Amino acid sequence: MDDLSEALRVIKLVVLDFDGVLTDNRVLVMEDGSEGVVCNRSDGIGIQAARELGIEFLVLSKEKNPVVQIRCSKLQLSCISGCDDKKSTLSQYVVSVGCELNEVAYMGNDVNDIECLDMVGFPVAPADAWPEVLEHVRFVTERPGGAGAVRELCDMVVRANRHVGEHI
Amino acid sequence: MDDLSEALRVIKLVVLDFDGVLTDNRVLVMEDGSEGVVCNRSDGIGIQAARELGIEFLVLSKEKNPVVQIRCSKLQLSCISGCDDKKSTLSQYVVSVGCELNEVAYMGNDVNDIECLDMVGFPVAPADAWPEVLEHVRFVTERPGGAGAVRELCDMVVRANRHVGEHI
Amino acid sequence: MDDLSEALRVIKLVVLDFDGVLTDNRVLVMEDGSEGVVCNRSDGIGIQAARELGIEFLVLSKEKNPVVQIRCSKLQLSCISGCDDKKSTLSQYVVSVGCELNEVAYMGNDVNDIECLDMVGFPVAPADAWPEVLEHVRFVTERPGGAGAVRELCDMVVRANRHVGEHI
Amino acid sequence: MDDLSEALRVIKLVVLDFDGVLTDNRVLVMEDGSEGVVCNRSDGIGIQAARELGIEFLVLSKEKNPVVQIRCSKLQLSCISGCDDKKSTLSQYVVSVGCELNEVAYMGNDVNDIECLDMVGFPVAPADAWPEVLEHVRFVTERPGGAGAVRELCDMVVRANRHVGEHI
Repeated sequence: MDDLSEALRVIKLVVLDFDGVLTDNRVLVMEDGSEGVVCNRSDGIGIQAARELGIEFLVLSKEKNPVVQIRCSKLQLSCISGCDDKKSTLSQYVVSVGCELNEVAYMGNDVNDIECLDMVGFPVAPADAWPEVLEHVRFVTERPGGAGAVRELCDMVVRANRHVGEHI
Repeated sequence: MDDLSEALRVIKLVVLDFDGVLTDNRVLVMEDGSEGVVCNRSDGIGIQAARELGIEFLVLSKEKNPVVQIRCSKLQLSCISGCDDKKSTLSQYVVSVGCELNEVAYMGNDVNDIECLDMVGFPVAPADAWPEVLEHVRFVTERPGGAGAVRELCDMVVRANRHVGEHI
Repeated sequence: MDDLSEALRVIKLVVLDFDGVLTDNRVLVMEDGSEGVVCNRSDGIGIQAARELGIEFLVLSKEKNPVVQIRCSKLQLSCISGCDDKKSTLSQYVVSVGCELNEVAYMGNDVNDIECLDMVGFPVAPADAWPEVLEHVRFVTERPGGAGAVRELCDMVVRANRHVGEHI
Repeated sequence: MDDLSEALRVIKLVVLDFDGVLTDNRVLVMEDGSEGVVCNRSDGIGIQAARELGIEFLVLSKEKNPVVQIRCSKLQLSCISGCDDKKSTLSQYVVSVGCELNEVAYMGNDVNDIECLDMVGFPVAPADAWPEVLEHVRFVTERPGGAGAVRELCDMVVRANRHVGEHI
């Protein structure tokens, strides 16, 4: 088994930034002030498959808009939004669920994710992540955020676990 | 007449997944929790032309959101949404309308469509279908879902039927 | 002056299909059944400049949704929506405003525009028009519908008229 | 220090057109007449970083729709919308904040921005600006409007100021 598969196989918790990861980083602003974001149905299918293997998920976002909680609720994802200090929040969360940092995958697309990317065992970015982010990740998905980046990560985790099963 | 035209000529029922086929697989999530999807006017024109030849349509979707029924209602398409077992639903539907599986075209874009694609005479995928799907289809449209994939399929069915008429 | 400039110089009326011309042919469908379309701010600037030269505009659409009238109202465009017979409507309109068919530009993107395109002096299609349409037009804009196709046509008409002025 | 860095280093005020700069120039029109625009989360991060260096921002838009004020309010940007004479408004604003025109960056994407672009020390356009605009700017960002063009400009200003600091 190669290094990448081994790193994927030990993942117990997948932490996702919201905007630019579960969305395409754009925000629809209506004239009444309400906001919307564009997500992708394919991510939900990948998350479901990974969850059936016991993988846990957390969404960690600086954004305060309720749309973050609403989308996570539909996907049944734990969510901490309006988070101004992602690094310490992530540290505490990992302890609280009894998991090690090398068992965590973190996907982020912008500079405010770099501290978290540097903490975890499997830092990953979507194809359209901001350039500064790329030197802090181990893997870049082929698809951009909101267009299947999360699905790709989930599929990789699922495949790495399946291959293990096949060898038993 | 070539094999493809023959397969198209016998089609009596076109079954469509919703997300990723009649849409681009994205979902707009507003902060009040309401959802929207992006469809394409060109699909409606193709569906209308095929219907005038007596072709029937069914939309089969796992998604529970009412937007599926609403879009299908505007296009006057029969619709079964919130469907957790597409395979057995499709089997029963085909019997109920008195049609054979080799007379069915099914267009799907993701892994939960594979069982249905394997059942029918003419399995087809939009250009941007998930890779695992492609080995289960006979034809891949040039256009992605929500950007004319359904229109392309309808035009192919219409042309195959017209060519028959020309030969009488 | 070349043939294209001459054809543009005589245009007095610009007739536009709505979906796929002033929009990208997509429709946002919300779960409450309301619809939305995506237009482009650049078209409005071009329309305004052409109107200052005395060019008139008409939008002619099969679509019944009120969004067509609403967009046209903002752009101060005359609009006939829910039109099932574009050909005869266009014939009558041209007579009613006292203009000849060779003085009309028509931009359409799909097969239900072909009859109108064949009637007028300057038939034109956006870059992403349906293939069958392309053989019925004199010019294809570089930009797709909803992304500046109408602006391009307006700019061409304005430039053709300006060049005439320069030669006086 | 090269000329570009020097021009960026003296910038005290960044003036932004709204549509096509902070948005992708498209407008969502709903059937109830309400409008929406698509902005990008990445711009907010860049604006925040530049503001921490003391850079001021102004949005100057011809558009009357309240969505302009709403987006600017969320980003805490000063905003003058419904502005029919951008040139004189800009002149007065610059005086009122006690800043020189050579200390101003202006980003615009269409012909109604040209007069302002010609006035300021650092005129800049997004990648997808209308062609006539390009000959009036000193720099064109790699990213289009609504997809990070503003972020790119902010990052350039921030980097030019940081390099100065490093040399002290």
